[in-house]
Amino acid sequence: MSVQRRHDRKFVRTFFTTPTAVKGEEDSAKMLRRAVQLRGIEAPDVWVPDNEDATAPSMREEGAENIVDVLSEDGADFPGEIHPRIVWHRDSPSTRYQSLQQLLQIANPEKGAIEHIDGFVIPEVGDIDDWKKADEFITVVENEYGLEEGSLAMSVIVESGEAELALGDLRDEMGKPSNNLERLFLLVDGEVDYTKDMRAITPTGELPPWPELRHNTSRGASANGLIAIDGPYDDIRDVEGYHERMTENQAKGMLGIWSLTPGQVEEANKSPLPPKTGSWRLDVNGREVKLAEEDGLYIYEGDDVELEEIGDEQYRLQIGSDERELDTNELEEELLDRADYIPSMTDIVDSMEEFEAAKEAGRGAIAMEQSATLLIDGIEVTISNDRMWDEATYQAAQTPISLFQDVYENRPDQHEDLEEIYGEEIVERAMVVG
Amino acid sequence: MSVQRRHDRKFVRTFFTTPTAVKGEEDSAKMLRRAVQLRGIEAPDVWVPDNEDATAPSMREEGAENIVDVLSEDGADFPGEIHPRIVWHRDSPSTRYQSLQQLLQIANPEKGAIEHIDGFVIPEVGDIDDWKKADEFITVVENEYGLEEGSLAMSVIVESGEAELALGDLRDEMGKPSNNLERLFLLVDGEVDYTKDMRAITPTGELPPWPELRHNTSRGASANGLIAIDGPYDDIRDVEGYHERMTENQAKGMLGIWSLTPGQVEEANKSPLPPKTGSWRLDVNGREVKLAEEDGLYIYEGDDVELEEIGDEQYRLQIGSDERELDTNELEEELLDRADYIPSMTDIVDSMEEFEAAKEAGRGAIAMEQSATLLIDGIEVTISNDRMWDEATYQAAQTPISLFQDVYENRPDQHEDLEEIYGEEIVERAMVVG
Amino acid sequence: MSVQRRHDRKFVRTFFTTPTAVKGEEDSAKMLRRAVQLRGIEAPDVWVPDNEDATAPSMREEGAENIVDVLSEDGADFPGEIHPRIVWHRDSPSTRYQSLQQLLQIANPEKGAIEHIDGFVIPEVGDIDDWKKADEFITVVENEYGLEEGSLAMSVIVESGEAELALGDLRDEMGKPSNNLERLFLLVDGEVDYTKDMRAITPTGELPPWPELRHNTSRGASANGLIAIDGPYDDIRDVEGYHERMTENQAKGMLGIWSLTPGQVEEANKSPLPPKTGSWRLDVNGREVKLAEEDGLYIYEGDDVELEEIGDEQYRLQIGSDERELDTNELEEELLDRADYIPSMTDIVDSMEEFEAAKEAGRGAIAMEQSATLLIDGIEVTISNDRMWDEATYQAAQTPISLFQDVYENRPDQHEDLEEIYGEEIVERAMVVG
Repeated sequence: MSVQRRHDRKFVRTFFTTPTAVKGEEDSAKMLRRAVQLRGIEAPDVWVPDNEDATAPSMREEGAENIVDVLSEDGADFPGEIHPRIVWHRDSPSTRYQSLQQLLQIANPEKGAIEHIDGFVIPEVGDIDDWKKADEFITVVENEYGLEEGSLAMSVIVESGEAELALGDLRDEMGKPSNNLERLFLLVDGEVDYTKDMRAITPTGELPPWPELRHNTSRGASANGLIAIDGPYDDIRDVEGYHERMTENQAKGMLGIWSLTPGQVEEANKSPLPPKTGSWRLDVNGREVKLAEEDGLYIYEGDDVELEEIGDEQYRLQIGSDERELDTNELEEELLDRADYIPSMTDIVDSMEEFEAAKEAGRGAIAMEQSATLLIDGIEVTISNDRMWDEATYQAAQTPISLFQDVYENRPDQHEDLEEIYGEEIVERAMVVG
Repeated sequence: MSVQRRHDRKFVRTFFTTPTAVKGEEDSAKMLRRAVQLRGIEAPDVWVPDNEDATAPSMREEGAENIVDVLSEDGADFPGEIHPRIVWHRDSPSTRYQSLQQLLQIANPEKGAIEHIDGFVIPEVGDIDDWKKADEFITVVENEYGLEEGSLAMSVIVESGEAELALGDLRDEMGKPSNNLERLFLLVDGEVDYTKDMRAITPTGELPPWPELRHNTSRGASANGLIAIDGPYDDIRDVEGYHERMTENQAKGMLGIWSLTPGQVEEANKSPLPPKTGSWRLDVNGREVKLAEEDGLYIYEGDDVELEEIGDEQYRLQIGSDERELDTNELEEELLDRADYIPSMTDIVDSMEEFEAAKEAGRGAIAMEQSATLLIDGIEVTISNDRMWDEATYQAAQTPISLFQDVYENRPDQHEDLEEIYGEEIVERAMVVG
Repeated sequence: MSVQRRHDRKFVRTFFTTPTAVKGEEDSAKMLRRAVQLRGIEAPDVWVPDNEDATAPSMREEGAENIVDVLSEDGADFPGEIHPRIVWHRDSPSTRYQSLQQLLQIANPEKGAIEHIDGFVIPEVGDIDDWKKADEFITVVENEYGLEEGSLAMSVIVESGEAELALGDLRDEMGKPSNNLERLFLLVDGEVDYTKDMRAITPTGELPPWPELRHNTSRGASANGLIAIDGPYDDIRDVEGYHERMTENQAKGMLGIWSLTPGQVEEANKSPLPPKTGSWRLDVNGREVKLAEEDGLYIYEGDDVELEEIGDEQYRLQIGSDERELDTNELEEELLDRADYIPSMTDIVDSMEEFEAAKEAGRGAIAMEQSATLLIDGIEVTISNDRMWDEATYQAAQTPISLFQDVYENRPDQHEDLEEIYGEEIVERAMVVG
């Protein structure tokens, strides 16, 4: 039996937390009420009314009631999934007992919220046996309230060394008759508490990058049909840094990320989708410089690359302090080595369609050409690259398209945004390819 | 039950090895006798009379006697812990039998050394079952000599792929009634032998960086209440490189490192402690440039950043080959993005005290401001940054303070050094915060 | 019992795949027939007639016959080992049944190919239990055809998160009486399918670097006496990139790599062997610049380092924008810090012989000196470095020599190439050292 994905969403881009009760406001549920109204590209794939760290301990009783109030009223119309976070701690039985109480309070069907809730988020888990304790409480509550066993999803925050190790045990434990761990949905990294648990120190106090944690979380998700989500990015002003982090994560197979504001939700909803238009980048001493497009030419506008014609088909190319004399062929070869193309949604759909047609016609591999004319110091150089596409290339290229399709099917509220970004025609073609 | 730390030291900064017997010297124990006299900032947290690799095989019999001689005489006054390293090899029963013999020899209470020994270091371990064999020998020796079972600590050198894998099994095995693995104390990476075991090759013959090994060791320590220590840094002259390595390790939660000389001990004892004074760094094309402080201004003295006033509140900023025109706000924003503050011990204590007071007053999060006036090409620019502190920030910031407190409590011989570095007042405040 | 290596080859540099049946050719086995004739430095250590991804599904029946035809005829003379890849998939029982059928077809002793086949390559494995299923089929086939149980090697392609996790379970499972996993030989990463399985996305569509996968594969090999091989490097034109990848892999203990062409085989056969001549590199702002050798001087030819004599034994050294005034000693120190020596085969053999002689004479450690005269802006600076060699250094330095010896013993067809590269004298000395 293959790795199964048991939930509606195969991909989750955004995990947006909201405090459940804020002190000092006339209406302590004000932030919940505002968040539940989010629609379209600002609305997350998974919304997390956060009755743990985002809410003061003294306000959590009230927070649980707020969740119930707000969801029973407006939960039906929320376009994403809803997974409240409740308290938990691997080292504290009293916190775990509070967790059971919060579950009983929020899931009570008489309160009318549970029908809009897709699952719960459990923070601060430890060993796999600790995960089972949380799973068991959810089973007990499901049974108590006449809900189908396993119908409530469970997501965990991986924020301890123990939990990271548990990621490697998961596959041995899911499917055992004595648990319902098949309810697992998201594996979410929590780098702030993880840093504390690992006792790491950085000079500035910023979080370490923890690449191995993210790899292990992504691998745990892959091996168990789950979805990996990165933790919060604190510096809300730093949109560029948020995007860099997401690009890094995506190369690890971690396609979702925590969002702290609707602005971050919007950025993170768009980030794993292919761009509207393709672009060329040039590798200049290890930095990737985006080339400006103008009238079909790709223009290098920096100072670090200099190109000069020094004779018939003879050029001097200087990159940083490295200077070389090249003929036309060598120049094209050199620039081709340094140039990368970032394909657009249309490019990917085109290539997939072309490959599908070739496969239909009995061919297993085809060459896809990318070419461009670069403009450097007024000199035009045309480069052209053939890339072989076979079944494996095709399937790897499919990930962003599968994600797009998952979004389109599950988020009708984003249809307009997507069509505005890409145009109707390419959206339609993207929905049938693959 | 939570992860327990069962030993006196919660943190170990330094693991200093000394050959136990040197051939050709009049007194073969000369180096041991010198090392046992170390005091203060040059004395390590853990001293390791090394009866394995640092001592020639033919001298180890004599080395064991030297350990006993030197420790029975001067061990009582040594300010750090004492953990001799004895021989062991996962692939050699005869080496393991020698290990038992060395244990019996050194731990013999009639020789008067064992009362000053905190534990033993076991190199070249393999699978977790191999760790248990060493543990069992120590148990047998404890029993034979009437020592309390589990009273001798055991530290291991992780220097094989098998031992790295065992780090993931540890949590399943500690606490079983058939072993005393709770005696485990330090997990020490041994990169030279690990490189051999992994059959790695580098062009220059220098050691690979092995980031995953260090992560897995640190995680193994975190998940089992142990302490992670990095292996030796061979290039003793290269103080800057040693510090860079330690900074990297600290970001992985590996706060201790092997030291080969008292000079390295001093550097490594100081490295994880916060600096006396705060400082600002500027990110210049990916390099972090420290700004010089003068009369309250932070001055950029390099050539890669150029700033010029080109009109009323209009500036031209050039960083490397990237040139931009900015107004005052944009300039401040840009420099703020590139500037990082490295807080001092005082800054950290101030922030923690401030947060504790806020918490007392019922507030869960407060903004901490950092501001500075930078001086670039004669132009002053004041930047200011608010950072939110909540419970999690507070707890993560606490690691260097907890380390400081552990050092202060366990190392009275370093009080003078610490007071000289930080001043008495801040030392006192650091001891009560948190 | 120590980690055992159970196969003839202790090292494998090259894993060369060839499609087994190409449509549209007069002779569909044409590529196999060409590959089986490879000899010398273009012939791989392991040749893989690829009846999986490289061959269209509709051609695999014919491909299996082609393997049998070509190997029964010419397999005896092939200088490397032969390990055909057959189909397999952790998620598909029907593919696994096809695998059994391919095994029965290819291994049938009446067809005369199996005596030239060293083992089989199983792709797309999952959990360790899935590895056992493939192992069991091979056992059944061995038994059916009267071959010794365990005599056929099994290599796997690690191309899923599950298989990566299985690398950690291997050591617990090998040696159990209910399997023959001791037949395992190569652990080969397959990054294209792994990327798909992990659902990773990169902007350009190129493969992520997956450093953790490679580490875990190498560690799995080390802990179980197996050999780690990296996956294919698609950009066949990019020889420099292929070498960079191999250098990275070697620092991880992954000494072999997939090759797609005889040209790549040649590069990969040479890459882990020490160079013919030593060379010096200078670290210039984080980049390693190779110095040109001329008349015994090592010349820096770039623009980023400037050196000027400004007085008696006084120099100004500018590296990038960092400028310093130094006396002769400081200058030598500074350049020594920045310079690295890449030893030649002769250097390594010399050092090992020297250390062996010292050990014989009862010394455990000796200093090896490296010195060179650098020429920068017309100024000569002589630097000299002592490096301590002890038993551990000696053993770590031994890896490339052990590899060389393994190659020389197992690949008589490469003797001529090796002697041409290194000269006869050093080849002979390299064969007896260590």
